[in-house]
Amino acid sequence: MMTRKLRMGMVGGGTGSFIGDVHRKAAAIDGMIELVCGAFSSTEEKSIASGKALHLKESRCYKTFEEMILKEKELPEDIRMDFVAIVTPNHMHFPPAKMALEHGFHVICDKPVTLTLEEATTLQSIIKESGKLFALTHNYTGNAMVKQAKAMIAAGELGKIRKIQAQYLQGWLSTTIETTGQKQAAWRTDPSKSGIGGALGDIGIHAENLISYVTGLNVAEVAADLGVFGKGRVLDDDGNMLIRMENGAKGSISISQIALGEENNLAIKVYGEKGSLEWYQENPNELITRWLNEPKKIYSPNGNGLHPEALEVSRIPSGHPEGYLEAFATIYKNFAKHILSVNAGEVVENPDYPRIEEGVRGMKFIYAAVESNDNNSNWTKI
Amino acid sequence: MMTRKLRMGMVGGGTGSFIGDVHRKAAAIDGMIELVCGAFSSTEEKSIASGKALHLKESRCYKTFEEMILKEKELPEDIRMDFVAIVTPNHMHFPPAKMALEHGFHVICDKPVTLTLEEATTLQSIIKESGKLFALTHNYTGNAMVKQAKAMIAAGELGKIRKIQAQYLQGWLSTTIETTGQKQAAWRTDPSKSGIGGALGDIGIHAENLISYVTGLNVAEVAADLGVFGKGRVLDDDGNMLIRMENGAKGSISISQIALGEENNLAIKVYGEKGSLEWYQENPNELITRWLNEPKKIYSPNGNGLHPEALEVSRIPSGHPEGYLEAFATIYKNFAKHILSVNAGEVVENPDYPRIEEGVRGMKFIYAAVESNDNNSNWTKI
Amino acid sequence: MMTRKLRMGMVGGGTGSFIGDVHRKAAAIDGMIELVCGAFSSTEEKSIASGKALHLKESRCYKTFEEMILKEKELPEDIRMDFVAIVTPNHMHFPPAKMALEHGFHVICDKPVTLTLEEATTLQSIIKESGKLFALTHNYTGNAMVKQAKAMIAAGELGKIRKIQAQYLQGWLSTTIETTGQKQAAWRTDPSKSGIGGALGDIGIHAENLISYVTGLNVAEVAADLGVFGKGRVLDDDGNMLIRMENGAKGSISISQIALGEENNLAIKVYGEKGSLEWYQENPNELITRWLNEPKKIYSPNGNGLHPEALEVSRIPSGHPEGYLEAFATIYKNFAKHILSVNAGEVVENPDYPRIEEGVRGMKFIYAAVESNDNNSNWTKI
Amino acid sequence: MMTRKLRMGMVGGGTGSFIGDVHRKAAAIDGMIELVCGAFSSTEEKSIASGKALHLKESRCYKTFEEMILKEKELPEDIRMDFVAIVTPNHMHFPPAKMALEHGFHVICDKPVTLTLEEATTLQSIIKESGKLFALTHNYTGNAMVKQAKAMIAAGELGKIRKIQAQYLQGWLSTTIETTGQKQAAWRTDPSKSGIGGALGDIGIHAENLISYVTGLNVAEVAADLGVFGKGRVLDDDGNMLIRMENGAKGSISISQIALGEENNLAIKVYGEKGSLEWYQENPNELITRWLNEPKKIYSPNGNGLHPEALEVSRIPSGHPEGYLEAFATIYKNFAKHILSVNAGEVVENPDYPRIEEGVRGMKFIYAAVESNDNNSNWTKI
Repeated sequence: MMTRKLRMGMVGGGTGSFIGDVHRKAAAIDGMIELVCGAFSSTEEKSIASGKALHLKESRCYKTFEEMILKEKELPEDIRMDFVAIVTPNHMHFPPAKMALEHGFHVICDKPVTLTLEEATTLQSIIKESGKLFALTHNYTGNAMVKQAKAMIAAGELGKIRKIQAQYLQGWLSTTIETTGQKQAAWRTDPSKSGIGGALGDIGIHAENLISYVTGLNVAEVAADLGVFGKGRVLDDDGNMLIRMENGAKGSISISQIALGEENNLAIKVYGEKGSLEWYQENPNELITRWLNEPKKIYSPNGNGLHPEALEVSRIPSGHPEGYLEAFATIYKNFAKHILSVNAGEVVENPDYPRIEEGVRGMKFIYAAVESNDNNSNWTKI
Repeated sequence: MMTRKLRMGMVGGGTGSFIGDVHRKAAAIDGMIELVCGAFSSTEEKSIASGKALHLKESRCYKTFEEMILKEKELPEDIRMDFVAIVTPNHMHFPPAKMALEHGFHVICDKPVTLTLEEATTLQSIIKESGKLFALTHNYTGNAMVKQAKAMIAAGELGKIRKIQAQYLQGWLSTTIETTGQKQAAWRTDPSKSGIGGALGDIGIHAENLISYVTGLNVAEVAADLGVFGKGRVLDDDGNMLIRMENGAKGSISISQIALGEENNLAIKVYGEKGSLEWYQENPNELITRWLNEPKKIYSPNGNGLHPEALEVSRIPSGHPEGYLEAFATIYKNFAKHILSVNAGEVVENPDYPRIEEGVRGMKFIYAAVESNDNNSNWTKI
Repeated sequence: MMTRKLRMGMVGGGTGSFIGDVHRKAAAIDGMIELVCGAFSSTEEKSIASGKALHLKESRCYKTFEEMILKEKELPEDIRMDFVAIVTPNHMHFPPAKMALEHGFHVICDKPVTLTLEEATTLQSIIKESGKLFALTHNYTGNAMVKQAKAMIAAGELGKIRKIQAQYLQGWLSTTIETTGQKQAAWRTDPSKSGIGGALGDIGIHAENLISYVTGLNVAEVAADLGVFGKGRVLDDDGNMLIRMENGAKGSISISQIALGEENNLAIKVYGEKGSLEWYQENPNELITRWLNEPKKIYSPNGNGLHPEALEVSRIPSGHPEGYLEAFATIYKNFAKHILSVNAGEVVENPDYPRIEEGVRGMKFIYAAVESNDNNSNWTKI
Repeated sequence: MMTRKLRMGMVGGGTGSFIGDVHRKAAAIDGMIELVCGAFSSTEEKSIASGKALHLKESRCYKTFEEMILKEKELPEDIRMDFVAIVTPNHMHFPPAKMALEHGFHVICDKPVTLTLEEATTLQSIIKESGKLFALTHNYTGNAMVKQAKAMIAAGELGKIRKIQAQYLQGWLSTTIETTGQKQAAWRTDPSKSGIGGALGDIGIHAENLISYVTGLNVAEVAADLGVFGKGRVLDDDGNMLIRMENGAKGSISISQIALGEENNLAIKVYGEKGSLEWYQENPNELITRWLNEPKKIYSPNGNGLHPEALEVSRIPSGHPEGYLEAFATIYKNFAKHILSVNAGEVVENPDYPRIEEGVRGMKFIYAAVESNDNNSNWTKI
């Protein structure tokens, strides 16, 4: 079936960008995708220099995403890009996504899906009308052990879920580095570029998404106490939240970007009536499980006792650690597979990558948490 | 100075009791205390049989705590007990504590200090009037690494504290074992014996106490969402709480006795402006710390870089793990030292063991959390 | 059955001693043993001062072990000590052990059993003739998870054992602290007090003993490369050894007291045809196991899936860590139980504590390793 | 400088191959290399099918490596491959390496470098004469924390090295899967394809290489006790080795492919006079260090306190785990950089990737270990 590499165009991700580079590496790992063009920067010169540094033909280094979409559209079908990867700051997700979809290109986009909830729901309609595919890079769901956790819960091995704890703790905004020229810190702390959520929009929605993905349950309501610890900041850089799930389970989410010394500590614990599990992103190759009458069991990628969903994710034998890029690559791989299926005229019921639904839910979560916080942590429905 | 062993009388802790045995072992480790008498059970026969099994003289195996206190009072000063250890269920803390104090005996008591907040404040007055010493066994503060954490924060090494997370997770009430004859489960889930807090009173106050002890800050208000997952239960067996500290720090506490598979997972994380730390009771011999510009540092008992407060706690060289009983023993040791100092006519400014103040604060925490929960998790002052 | 506390007399362990204090605490924990007398030091004054500090009657603070044994012998049966605990440097194990046994006292002795192999075999005869009990404090075998490891292997769960790795790594002799007045370092590096093994005698035999205890197999031959890294030292402070077991399994032992930064890192790994296991003394409350077709399983004291031998060791519920002293106490407890059984006229087939056989084997291991090292690491039978 | 992607041709690595796929992914991650041709299998059909599945042009899917080298040689310079990647079983390393070098292509080759030591030294001469570059994929040296370890030791932070322990433990040959059609097991256990070392050649040389790379010291002599536990095997599947380093340090290496349940447990510990360190491949993103007077410090990629050599390796921020493929990719990246430098006429003194010298030393290590084992573990010079 896989008869050719898919061709990717990129919006954002110029030289020096963190997440653009991540997307390119993730797209490259499995050999299914080739970067063919891009509009890498809001600055024309930088955009073209970035493209050249990436060994692109100069003719396909575009000045703007609009130019890219229009020009690529005119290229012969066997040359033009298949999909657009959007790796810009949040406020620049919606415009290129909309235009790409409306011109017949599939889109893969960084999270949060858009700047505002309104944009998100609008985008949902656009996607539907376009008939094109849309992927959202909630990359942590691409980990083999996350797939195993999801599969175990889906199979009922943990029984009814009662308690959930998630955390996403970072410390990189412990000091106000946004005032020192650190570009990512600058736009992340700027509501015109980030939206109404600071840490919420950057990492909070990863926690929310991980909970939903792993448990198959949505957060029904949230009581949030957000913190703004960095001097001069307007957006949250910390938050503690109580959550209630649609099935009656209870839990909490703790997020922070001022948790000094924490690197990228995303974690989830899920407790059911028959078993429980625990996973840490910084140590992604183990899944800790506990049971009523059996000793603690630790699963590892490609190890014993895995569900097929987990087994098919691992690229290398057990004990050969896969990390952040590999999980990210799994999103790209599954998105690429879906495009190839569609190209082959196949219908795929439940493609395994995050889509617009997850994006909209993430935005609703941000909005509910902010509203709760504004109302002294009152319980707020999502 | 230490010219003799102190003599301990025990209320509760008959054969088969968990916590009574813990108190006896903890009291024995450092060779400063001798068990000389007891009223070990509400059943006369069992009380005496328990005493004999503990190699006590039959004459000092009492039927009731009242008998013990009165009879011991009559014994010559160099024979009678010096203090009473109370290891009964919560509802039986106040009566023997009150009587012992009023008859001139020091008291060491398991937590929570009493059944009700009212009893706690009454006891506070009684203690004051009696001039006797009162210790509360918040045993986890006896760990060397907890002392190190406290000392580091007190010395300002972490800077101003911004974020705190504590958890105390157990799974032993995942099923309704209180209906199967498990005695401890039975009284722990019975409000007439436990008070208004279930998990809150059993373990929640350990988390609250650990936070206060380590950070030197009190919880100012709490927003609690308590769970009652066990069928037929009336008391909380789970809880998620947001907290705000008196200094403006924010945080959360998660407690559970239905977190299936968790054993005794008490943990604390504290994030300051200059550093952060993390400690796990199940792995008590390491203290994880993180810093703005230095690599992660792990402290160990009797290891390098410790404050004197931590060094003096360790009984054995680094790498020789101390555990639950040793930490518990530290409470007894410090209480015993205080008694000996008092006997020697010395004044001790700040004896390092939990006292009635901690007990009252714990009760207020329980009451505030329950009130918050009754008001749909509204913020409630402590 | 347990109608009274056993009475212990101690040889060595004066104020400031590390191991004497450990023995006393270990003996105290389970409430079965009472220290009643001692000859705590080679210096008369210090001996008596130590006894007083331990709250002994002055009449039972003896100047020498000879005096203690003779005087205690004359005391009424219900007052005199039941057994002698020997906690002196190695060269002072044999004389008091011999005399105590010959005067009808049971003996519990620190390791290595004696200064020389010859003494060890002589002692073996003396014990036999005396009909008295003799325990050797290979304390690490008292850990619950070590018992579980032993029981699993004995039950055949791991299949035939193929590979064994043990290590005992410390760093306290990384610098030549024996020249700075550190007393323990001084005698440990002095062959007239330690014997022909330095690290070998202090910690190497713990590793050898742990291997034999856990696997039920003896080391058949050894090829040793010992190191003497501390300037001016004559005894080994480091060693790497290949071993071959009596059943054909192969393995290695690494020991060191100059492994800078290591605290007390005793560990064992055992690989069989059906499963494998791994245990670390510094983290004693977990036993890691791996299986052909199942995920890794982690056992914990009083947790799920344990053999009775492991369950009966734990004093407290799972998740409440026990450590070095508790494991040490288990040796004392089992020794005390055996004495009580003997006193009650019972015959015990296989009491679970290390005895003279383990002591003699340890000495043979030291001698074989030294001989191998002297012959450029030739394989040497034990 | 980096003006174009380098073009790679591959020998071996047909569909279903483990290591061929690893090489392709590793080469792809950093976007510097493009696979353009290959002779992927000894079977003509499979070779071509594999190439097509990799989206290569049919004209560049070759039947044999000889054909590939000759035909590519004839292609225009801006189209033909720049270098050959050899990912065949050991016995097929030398022939394509020799031919590629002699036809002017750089070569990157899997380890061990050749089937025999003689081939290795011959290859060394061929490389020298050819003036072409040769890389050997000792991939573990590509980890950021391995670079940090090397840099710390090179900077003297640990002082003089005294003790080294390395292990490489796997369990995948615990049963005789080579008789069940498992292809990799089949050739790994076949001396005509693997050479005289089994586990030695597959993983032992990784341990040896890691020791040399990290410490900057070579193993001077080895005393080896190899095991052949799998029924019917002729090559070692297990080994325990004592080592002596050229500087007087001592140590041991333990390797196994029958260490049941172990996945890919490569680890190294190095103890110096001033500090020590410890690294585990399965948890590659931390480097544990210990110090005379400071607490244990844990370094992480892109974290605090790193040497530039470690910092430049990390592709993503701290806390975003990199794994096996990323470390492997670092070898490819550094090799590619060297080719580009050479193409640009630059001279690079010490390119940071393993070369023929490491290959020859690895073969000598295998030969010395086998010889030692044949002589009942006598010390054997390397």
